[in-house]
Amino acid sequence: MKIDQLLNEVKNDLTEHRFRHTLGVKQTALELAKHYHVSPEQAEVAAIAHDIAKFWPEARLKTVLTQEITAGRVRSDILQYNKELWHAPVGAAWVNERFGIREEVILDAVRYHTSARTNMSALEKIIWLADYIEPNRNFPGVETVRALAFKDLDEAMITGLAQTIQFLLSRRQLVYPLTLEAYNDLVKVRAQKAVR
Amino acid sequence: MKIDQLLNEVKNDLTEHRFRHTLGVKQTALELAKHYHVSPEQAEVAAIAHDIAKFWPEARLKTVLTQEITAGRVRSDILQYNKELWHAPVGAAWVNERFGIREEVILDAVRYHTSARTNMSALEKIIWLADYIEPNRNFPGVETVRALAFKDLDEAMITGLAQTIQFLLSRRQLVYPLTLEAYNDLVKVRAQKAVR
Repeated sequence: MKIDQLLNEVKNDLTEHRFRHTLGVKQTALELAKHYHVSPEQAEVAAIAHDIAKFWPEARLKTVLTQEITAGRVRSDILQYNKELWHAPVGAAWVNERFGIREEVILDAVRYHTSARTNMSALEKIIWLADYIEPNRNFPGVETVRALAFKDLDEAMITGLAQTIQFLLSRRQLVYPLTLEAYNDLVKVRAQKAVR
Repeated sequence: MKIDQLLNEVKNDLTEHRFRHTLGVKQTALELAKHYHVSPEQAEVAAIAHDIAKFWPEARLKTVLTQEITAGRVRSDILQYNKELWHAPVGAAWVNERFGIREEVILDAVRYHTSARTNMSALEKIIWLADYIEPNRNFPGVETVRALAFKDLDEAMITGLAQTIQFLLSRRQLVYPLTLEAYNDLVKVRAQKAVR
């Protein structure tokens, strides 16, 4: 896989605004990777790739998503929830097929960058958080997570996930169950750490 | 089943404060039952019974809960979540055994009065809401649900569940997945109604 080819396709397929966001995610992901001793190469590829399918038409997203569900790589309940979730697993499938990215840790970081999930790897948390706090992001609560991200990955995730779910609830929108599972999982891990 | 025997045991087993709450739930449940043409007899029994196991010691709660899980009447994941949830299914099992209450619609209203669930009956919604809004309740957001409860049961449930989950998230506490499922279920039902 040539990273400049990937970057080129991402630049072509995204709006200028979204491409700027992707570069912000890359920057923040690299900073977090360095801070937490995670491979910067993997962080860079996952960050550049994460939104690659963001603007695909719904029919194309659904075709790939259905294949991924059939292959057992994606939970079928995603079809009943917000379509904003779909581009993440589809992007993972696409960079595998198109750019030969085979490292599961990178594919999972792309796959779960919107929903999150239980038992996330450090790279998955880094990409989720970088997407949430990159410099172009500006919404209530972002500063809290920005400050936490370089102190404690799990605390930052708990706060970011709680805020995300609270936002959806305040708008009376559906909340994808896997996102709550991710939050509960991290709260349980924290409670176990406190006992030790 | 003699209702005065049930009322007597509830009065004996609850604190004065909690018994006053139970009488408040009874009053509100009767008003809602009348408003929505639900059996007032069933609403009264479910309301009086709902907190019967509230102050049981944890070991006794766990014994009955384990039996209920084994019998397939309660999801096993409840054991990993807040113990405040346990008295509800245990209360349902107890009023069945002790007072011979066999009507599933009453038992389910007791069983799900804290967690809620998907596909709730009107009586289940009435008991959940009466528990949330009875006259002694006083917390931010209660007035919103009080006003909604007599206009639209589902809207009141959506708001009450959203507020409940938001409160838990704001305290970084675990959220029982079934409670989110209940919320998502009602949001989907509303969306389907809007399409029709």
